[in-house]
Amino acid sequence: MSVLKEQTNVEAQAIEAKKAAKKLGLLSTEEKNEALHVIADSLEQNFQYILDENEKDLQNGREQGYEEAFMDRLALSKARIADFAEGLRQVAVLEDPTGNTVSSWTLDNGLLVEKVTVPLGVIGMIYEARPNVTVDATGLALKSGNAIVLKGGSSALSSNKAIVSVMHDALKATKIPQEAVQFIASTDREATKQLFTMKEHIDVLIPRGGGSLINAVVNNATVPVLETGVGNCHLYIDVEADVEKALTILVNAKTDRPAVCNSLETAIIHKEWLEKNAEQLIQTLRDHTITVHGDETALSFIPNATLANEEDWANEYLSLDLAVKTVKNVEEAIEHIDQYGTKHSEAIVTENKTTAKQFMNLVDASALYHNASTRFTDGGALGFGAEIGISTQKLHARGPMGLPALTTVKFLMSGNGQVR
Amino acid sequence: MSVLKEQTNVEAQAIEAKKAAKKLGLLSTEEKNEALHVIADSLEQNFQYILDENEKDLQNGREQGYEEAFMDRLALSKARIADFAEGLRQVAVLEDPTGNTVSSWTLDNGLLVEKVTVPLGVIGMIYEARPNVTVDATGLALKSGNAIVLKGGSSALSSNKAIVSVMHDALKATKIPQEAVQFIASTDREATKQLFTMKEHIDVLIPRGGGSLINAVVNNATVPVLETGVGNCHLYIDVEADVEKALTILVNAKTDRPAVCNSLETAIIHKEWLEKNAEQLIQTLRDHTITVHGDETALSFIPNATLANEEDWANEYLSLDLAVKTVKNVEEAIEHIDQYGTKHSEAIVTENKTTAKQFMNLVDASALYHNASTRFTDGGALGFGAEIGISTQKLHARGPMGLPALTTVKFLMSGNGQVR
Repeated sequence: MSVLKEQTNVEAQAIEAKKAAKKLGLLSTEEKNEALHVIADSLEQNFQYILDENEKDLQNGREQGYEEAFMDRLALSKARIADFAEGLRQVAVLEDPTGNTVSSWTLDNGLLVEKVTVPLGVIGMIYEARPNVTVDATGLALKSGNAIVLKGGSSALSSNKAIVSVMHDALKATKIPQEAVQFIASTDREATKQLFTMKEHIDVLIPRGGGSLINAVVNNATVPVLETGVGNCHLYIDVEADVEKALTILVNAKTDRPAVCNSLETAIIHKEWLEKNAEQLIQTLRDHTITVHGDETALSFIPNATLANEEDWANEYLSLDLAVKTVKNVEEAIEHIDQYGTKHSEAIVTENKTTAKQFMNLVDASALYHNASTRFTDGGALGFGAEIGISTQKLHARGPMGLPALTTVKFLMSGNGQVR
Repeated sequence: MSVLKEQTNVEAQAIEAKKAAKKLGLLSTEEKNEALHVIADSLEQNFQYILDENEKDLQNGREQGYEEAFMDRLALSKARIADFAEGLRQVAVLEDPTGNTVSSWTLDNGLLVEKVTVPLGVIGMIYEARPNVTVDATGLALKSGNAIVLKGGSSALSSNKAIVSVMHDALKATKIPQEAVQFIASTDREATKQLFTMKEHIDVLIPRGGGSLINAVVNNATVPVLETGVGNCHLYIDVEADVEKALTILVNAKTDRPAVCNSLETAIIHKEWLEKNAEQLIQTLRDHTITVHGDETALSFIPNATLANEEDWANEYLSLDLAVKTVKNVEEAIEHIDQYGTKHSEAIVTENKTTAKQFMNLVDASALYHNASTRFTDGGALGFGAEIGISTQKLHARGPMGLPALTTVKFLMSGNGQVR
């Protein structure tokens, strides 16, 4: 196995990526799919090398005393590597998002106008210690005809280097130039910062990770950013909410993978509903070991709850903690979400269609749910096949981003001498 | 006529806009169209007040010794104000870009997923001394259900204040809250900077003006930006170019409104074509008083041309000057465009379809032309009805941006208790 060349010149890598992107953009769908299969096979064949390198990161993680959830995300296994490969094969099956004529028309003077989808060019992916992103993002980028510059978290450095090294070797047998996949091996923070302003070479930056990583990119980048992921999601239980639906959705949204961004963080409960259904609610919370941080009214109904402060409303717990806010009506619920929501996923449980419509119309978020769990905000669940992240911004792509989010358009005009 | 209230608190204005946007988003298409007509009528009725205020800006401009082109853009007349009104009436006729179901599907579990278009929310418009932008941008924002915060150039301050004052008074008779149109009357640069980082209240910033204004916004804003306008456009005349087509297109792209962004700045000419057609080219350039700045080969053919330097290749002239670069083949032409183009509009003249295809595929720009003038990169010319600007970026919207560029989407999920 060849060892990944350590480039220190981030700009040189970005320029190589840009050049490679030109070649990549001309390949056929079949050539790109073929390459994804070759990479997938190669990752499986070289699983032992990847695991050996992963062990170095794990060893370091143990020495640093990283917490369990972090180590879980970092740890690879033969089965996880097989999952990575399978993910690439699934991306190969997806429709090629480039080369589609979105619309075309002819002007009165005979000029033919065609609006076609094309790759963005070079994607800069900045992420934390999840080696799966190295494979997933590369697969989605290559399928959509884009080169990628990867900057992963330093705690996964050995794992990422091993994965990229295997992918590079695999690309030799394909039409995709190796240079289309660039990995920034430097752990220097300056290397990341350089990516922020390389407008000439990088077309979009996609940060994936916690709020501080995302904010660092958003606040410092002049390269356009696709903002992903922070989800301070709310569930509003209306006075006309069906009890069973409300509790089933609350439990699912809170307890099924609480560490992901589409999980529930605050339940906003109508006071009258709470009064009527406190007993069942308390039992449900207890059964699922959910810890409540509530406002004073909530505390008067729910035993063992602590008083919520500003941070409880504003931040994601990503754990089995839940903030509980009580309100008099849907307007107050919407106001609370306006103030604290992150425009990710917001849900209402009610049997009143007018109230539901008011909520869906007025709440500003990428995904609004009436009588369903916020957990469906997910590319896989919605049938997009694969997802590069969940956009919480309004420009370009909103909500789960599949392959089309990695494309842009060109207007192609064909004439015979037309002037204005 | 009421005098515009001078708010000094930019944030308070942005918050008012955000609140107004909520109300505006719920209005029907008819209510929005009605408001546009009321504003249009009111601008025409109050033309004298606007002209009187405009005279103050003109007086100041004369004292400052502003150049003629600048004064031309600043100067209003009864006819120009009627044009503004007519523009609003045309926007009223356009299809409402919001409330459209882009796609909808039902998951296996019965959850209905609908992807619908919604307003962006609040648009921050930062522009130079063109009072028409005050009206045009407001019309497009309101029609698409968005509130707008306007920050115009200080040399048009009195004109803009008068226009906004008339629009505010007109809005009183409509369903659109006055607060949906905010005008930052402060000429303090700090006021503009405040807009750059108001992510909570402003959803997108659109700068319209010269390169330095646009760069100031792009480099300092944390609010997402729709980059518009700088067009360093090229025309490549291939060895197989038809002489008449080449010269007609060159003259049109260079001389018809040279100050706008879709005008030609550099002609890239195949050496053999130049050798064969120098005489006709020289005559054409002379007939249209085009001043040439060329490379050494160009100079050996074209008399009275000066040697081009780096700045000639890199910058827009926006005048009857033209840079001329000679090349051996289309690849060299593409390389030059890669280095100096601004991804706006690029054209090739050739009778060879393979060469044309190579150019269209490999050049990275929003609009590519084969045998036609770059002057068609314009919302009106392409049939979009009205345009908020020409995007030179790749995310969200590319090329001329009509009303749909001022919308985003929401995923609306309707269920009966679905969980994952």
